[in-house]
Formats: sequence, structure tokens, C-alpha cells
Amino acid sequence: MSAQLHELIATFASFGATSDGGVCRLTGSAEDAAARNLLGLEIGRRRLRLHVDPIGNMFGIADLAPHTRETVLVGSHLDSQPTGGRFDGSYGVLAGLLAVEAVMSRAAARQIRPKCNLALVNWTNEEGARFQPSLTGSSVFAGNLALDDALALADGNGVGLGQALDAIGHRGVSPPAIDPVRYVELHVEQGARLEQSGDEIGAVTAAWAACKLSLIFQGQPSHTGPMPMASRRDALRAAARAIELHYRLIEASATGAHASAARITSFPNSPNVTPSRVQVWFEFRHEVEATAVQLAENFLIEVQAAVRPLGVSMEIATDERRGTALLDPEGVALTLSVARDLGYSAIEMKTVAGHDALALQKRVPASLIFVPSRDGLSHNAAEFTEAAALDKGLAVLTETLWRLVTR
Amino acid sequence: MSAQLHELIATFASFGATSDGGVCRLTGSAEDAAARNLLGLEIGRRRLRLHVDPIGNMFGIADLAPHTRETVLVGSHLDSQPTGGRFDGSYGVLAGLLAVEAVMSRAAARQIRPKCNLALVNWTNEEGARFQPSLTGSSVFAGNLALDDALALADGNGVGLGQALDAIGHRGVSPPAIDPVRYVELHVEQGARLEQSGDEIGAVTAAWAACKLSLIFQGQPSHTGPMPMASRRDALRAAARAIELHYRLIEASATGAHASAARITSFPNSPNVTPSRVQVWFEFRHEVEATAVQLAENFLIEVQAAVRPLGVSMEIATDERRGTALLDPEGVALTLSVARDLGYSAIEMKTVAGHDALALQKRVPASLIFVPSRDGLSHNAAEFTEAAALDKGLAVLTETLWRLVTR
Repeated sequence: MSAQLHELIATFASFGATSDGGVCRLTGSAEDAAARNLLGLEIGRRRLRLHVDPIGNMFGIADLAPHTRETVLVGSHLDSQPTGGRFDGSYGVLAGLLAVEAVMSRAAARQIRPKCNLALVNWTNEEGARFQPSLTGSSVFAGNLALDDALALADGNGVGLGQALDAIGHRGVSPPAIDPVRYVELHVEQGARLEQSGDEIGAVTAAWAACKLSLIFQGQPSHTGPMPMASRRDALRAAARAIELHYRLIEASATGAHASAARITSFPNSPNVTPSRVQVWFEFRHEVEATAVQLAENFLIEVQAAVRPLGVSMEIATDERRGTALLDPEGVALTLSVARDLGYSAIEMKTVAGHDALALQKRVPASLIFVPSRDGLSHNAAEFTEAAALDKGLAVLTETLWRLVTR
Repeated sequence: MSAQLHELIATFASFGATSDGGVCRLTGSAEDAAARNLLGLEIGRRRLRLHVDPIGNMFGIADLAPHTRETVLVGSHLDSQPTGGRFDGSYGVLAGLLAVEAVMSRAAARQIRPKCNLALVNWTNEEGARFQPSLTGSSVFAGNLALDDALALADGNGVGLGQALDAIGHRGVSPPAIDPVRYVELHVEQGARLEQSGDEIGAVTAAWAACKLSLIFQGQPSHTGPMPMASRRDALRAAARAIELHYRLIEASATGAHASAARITSFPNSPNVTPSRVQVWFEFRHEVEATAVQLAENFLIEVQAAVRPLGVSMEIATDERRGTALLDPEGVALTLSVARDLGYSAIEMKTVAGHDALALQKRVPASLIFVPSRDGLSHNAAEFTEAAALDKGLAVLTETLWRLVTR
């Protein structure tokens, strides 16, 4: 058992620890700063070069092949949901740190000169809990999101991401001087697929499509007492109707889609004022991109009609569409063969959740490796993976990186 | 036209002025402090004695009858809704100030010795926008709410009312040394009854009953991606279903009840976490107390059953019931006779909205006098009453106070 891995996971879980054993470590918070600062120390202690880029992504670079800038990246994220567990993200960063260290030691012990460099990464704001959209740091690095747009993202209180990174001293000035050639990410599954099949390692081949809409319902403020019911233009009543409609359509579609309405803001949010402006964040996820899109489009048509009789108008505030993404097939084959060689049972599978690996795949071939999650529970303090299963993931990650830098 | 009244209203509307011409002056805010401080100056300028009690109620006492502690109170509130207008509350306080001044002048001019004293009051947190329940200061003064409970009320960010009053220097140490014998409040109607009948003055006889419930829906946080739909326990989905049900029941009852679900808080409120804890504030108002109670009770039974299939439990966080309240009939008769003597058309009417006069009536006989509101619109920046109508209300208030202190 890798005592070091489990100690690191426990230590990092103390930053933002909640009373129920979970973690609340929002991007740019004091807890995030504490976790980042310790990661910086751990990076330095292993003689990796620390570099923070303009969107706060932290790199720990192992200069294994000084003749080239070609670099294999490995990592995940240290930010969490408000109701996060201790493995989501942190596991990939901390196992990545130990895997990089192990590759360095192995190269030294065997006196082998790797063909390229290796760098650990902690991506900024993967969760999208405080700032939307999610996968922020990895999307900027991959070139899918403009730096200025990312820095300007505002949280629910109007604080910008750039401002938040400045406040914790984690806003760098330049990208790292590396040429990324591959990305590998190890993560807990957050679903129950591996648990159900009894397999130890998941090699992720592709991601479900997701349509993420946030809608603003606009009514009119009035007194909740004397104003006649028929004269009210109630934006929260409209939002409730929209949420009900959204679930009704998903169920009626019988497509197996996953959908949610998980964030809501209401103004003025006083018990005695008819709500005049309510925003709701909806998600539609499906394995087939056309299905996710059609569900979202149908909803948009029906919701307009559903809220109009309430005197409430609707506008689309954000409309983010993530197509189904294929991860690099060579990476999948490598994960499967490494797992097989180490004696672990491994399967191909898809991910429903978004991951930094999906953002990276748009720039370099990327691999995503899963280990089982108990009951598929995630974004929950009770999120859990057995120590032995975490160790197997670390072993697969280390061997994968070794092969990538030496082949 | 009382230029002084309209200047005062315009001046006070600048504290918390919003870009659409409305007012946002929440209890204990910097804007509330500014309005309170100017009221203190205006009280002193008229040689009234300023006194702030332990819940922040501000008194401006005219010692017209030094031989007795008996005092007629007149007032309303300076706090507003986030989307408030410039008349709701402020009108009653500022007209009250001028009425007290006018009574003092008249007594001096006619060399009449009033039989009791007169005091202007600005009640704390009438609106219940920042701290719930509403009518806080008047309820403490009337003995309907314990001071410690009121001071401990917390806003949405966990700041206590006592703490907020301390922060603006408006938490006094003792009640004023007066024996209240009557309370008179002048207010804009906030409904369309007077506008429809074409009358100038409303003498309020009674208030509708109100049942105010806040319910907590408790589910379980999970990832909005991979977690199977059937395994989710979604508190926001339950809340939306409850809000829809609530309006369906109100419409089906065909009782003419007024109802609302106007405030909602959701935790963790991240787009990617199934909401685990959602609180919604519901109101049921009806002229007949039994009807309001029955609507609330029916809802409580049905909502339990409606959300259970979602794996979401429900608990009652607050359950505030305000019976129909009769205002002092002598006060109604006095308002009607004063209005008649001044040549204004006046009618008896009920109030749907809560007012400090209703809290006061539990301790001393109270009167509530309405002037028309355009389109019945209130808690809205467009709230409006004609200057001439405001003047008529001031004339009725002044004459009413004169008769009360000299009869």
C-alpha cells in the first residue's frame, strides 16, 4: 500500500474539510490557496520546477529530457464542489505527483535517459462550482477558451476569476515553456459502472454530450399581499414550471438522458415581493450528441410557451454545448495493456461527467483512467474508493507515464 | 400643496435610490443608517426628543403634556424592499413628522394645553426583507415578540439583527419612558381598491389573515452527470413541484386567496451538484382566517406526499400565522369623521398587507389610514401616489392627531 498517497490525500482533505468528512474547496478561496501552497511545497521538495500560468494552472515540471521541450502532462484538479469528497480531482493530482516522482527515480536507478519531459498539473476551476463554465484552466491551456474571457468570469457575488486568483497570489504571467505531447489523467469514476462489473480499471474511450443552458425568467416585482393574483408576473412561479417541465420532457423521452436543474438565483428574493428575475441552470446529457441537442431544443421551445401565460418572458443567458468527445484510442490501448500487464482487470467505458482530459484532447492526445467509486456517489462527502483500488490506479498511472516517456 | 412633505419624500428616496427610480433600503444597511441619521436630525430640528429603543425603533417625542406619560404614537417605517418604491413606509414617517410639528404649532398658536403627549416612530424592519419575520420592531414594542428573539434573527448571510443595529449605531438600551395610548399610521394602499372606487381616504377596519410557512426540502448531493436519474434525491426538483402544487391548490380552491412563493435558497447551488437542501417561503392570505389556515394545512398534507416519491423529505422551518385582526372601531370612526369634515370622500376597507398598526393593535388601539396607489402597484420602483392625494392624507393625519391629543 502506498502510505504516501493515502497520507497526501488525507492531508489535502483537511483544506476545506467539512464537518461531515467532505471537502469544500472552491476555486480561489482561502482553502484552495492553502492546498495550492502545499502542492507548491511538495513540488519543490521533489525537485520539480514550479510554474503558475496566467489562469492559475500549477505545473511541476520534471526536466527528464533537457534536449527537448516535449512534455507528457499528468494531472487533475484540487478545487472541489461545496459538497465535495476527498478523491474527486485531488486523487489525480496527488497520484500524479507520486507517479512523476516514481518515474524520475526509476530512470535514475536504471540509468535510462527519457525521451521527453514530464509535468504534473493542477488545473484551475475544473468543477465550475464558483465560476461557470467548468474546465476553465484546462480549456484556456488547450486553446478552447480565451484567457481574457476566463479571467473575466464572475462568481455569484460578482468577483472575477482573475481577481480571485490575484487575491491568493496564484495568477501567473506566462504559459510554461513546454510542448505538451500527451496528457494522462487518473480519476475516481463517480458512477457505478466499474463497481457493477467488478473491474479494477476503466479506460475511458469517449464522453457523453452535454447541453448546458442557463435561462433567465423575467417578471415584475409587486407586493405578495394586495396585488391581485391575475396581475402578478411571477418569475419564480415560471422557473418552477420550467423545472417541472424539464423533468417531464426527460422522462417522456425515455432516452436514458441525464438531466438536472441544479442552480437557481432569484431576485429580489424577499418573502414579500413577487420574484422579478430568476435564473436557472439546466443540463441535458446523453451518449448521443443529437439526442442531447434535441432534448435541449425541445425544452427551449416548450418552456417559452409554458411561461408566457404567466406574463413572464424568458431569455437564454448561456448556452454551452459539449459534443461527444473521443479520447485518443492509442491512449485507451495503452491503459488496457498496462493494466493487463500489472494483472488488473480493465474495461473500456464512457464518462458522463466532464473532465480536464476532455478539454486537453482538443490540443494533444489525452487519456482518462478510472478507478471504482462506491455506489457511484460523488459531489458528496460520502464519496469513497478503497485504498487498494487507489493504489492500483497509481500503479497503472506510473507505468503508463514510464512507457510514454521512454518508448 | 405641502412642499415640505414632497421635499422630504424626495430627499429620503435618495438613500438607497436605485437606477429605475425606486429604493433599496434594507434594515441595518448603510442606506438605512443614512435615512435614520437624517430622521434624527429632522427630529432634533423640530425640538422633539430623540430616543432609540433596544430593537432600533426611533422615537421623536413631543412633550406636549409634561404632567403625564400618556402618549399618542404616529409613524410607520423607513426600511424598504430591495425593489421598493419611495412611498411605502417613508410617507407615513415623514407625514407623521410634519403632523406632529403641525399639532405643536397649532397648540402654541391657540394656546391650548394638550391632554397627552405625541411621539413620532420609525419602526425597525417592517418589511421583513432582510430579516424574517416582518413587523419586527413594532412587534417587540407591542410585546408580541421577545426582544432577544428579535435581536437574534439572522439574515441570509447569518448576520444577526442585533449585530446589524450595533454596526450602524442604532441599537438603544431602554424603551422610551412613555405610556402609549393610541397609534395612528398613514400609508399608501398598495392595492387598487381606492383607485377603483374613486375615494380619497381609506379607513382600515381589519386585516386579512396570513399563514406564512417556510419549508425545507432535504435531499442528497450527488454529481449531476453520472448519477443515474432514479438514484437522485433532488431537493430543487421537489421545491419546484411544491411551488407548482401550491399554485394549483390555490387556483382549484377558487377562494380568492392571495398566495405566493417568493423566496428560495438552494444548497450547494452549484450547476453540477444535485441540490440537497432547498428552503422556500410560502404565503397564504385570505379575508377569512379559517380559509387561509385550511389552504395552508391542505398544502402541507399534499406537499409531503408530492415530494416523497423523489426521495426528498420535508420539514417545516417556520410557521407564522396571523389571524384576521380588527383595528380599533373608534379609530375607524374618527378617520371617517375627520375625512368628512375636511371634505374628502372616505370608505371603510380591509388591508391584505401587514402593517405595524396591526402589531400595535395588540397593545393599544390603532388606526390605519390609506391613500390611493396607482394601479395598486407596490414593492416596485413604479409605486406612485399623486402629490395631492398625499397632501390629503397628511391633512387627515394632522387633524386626527389634533383631536386625539386635545379631546
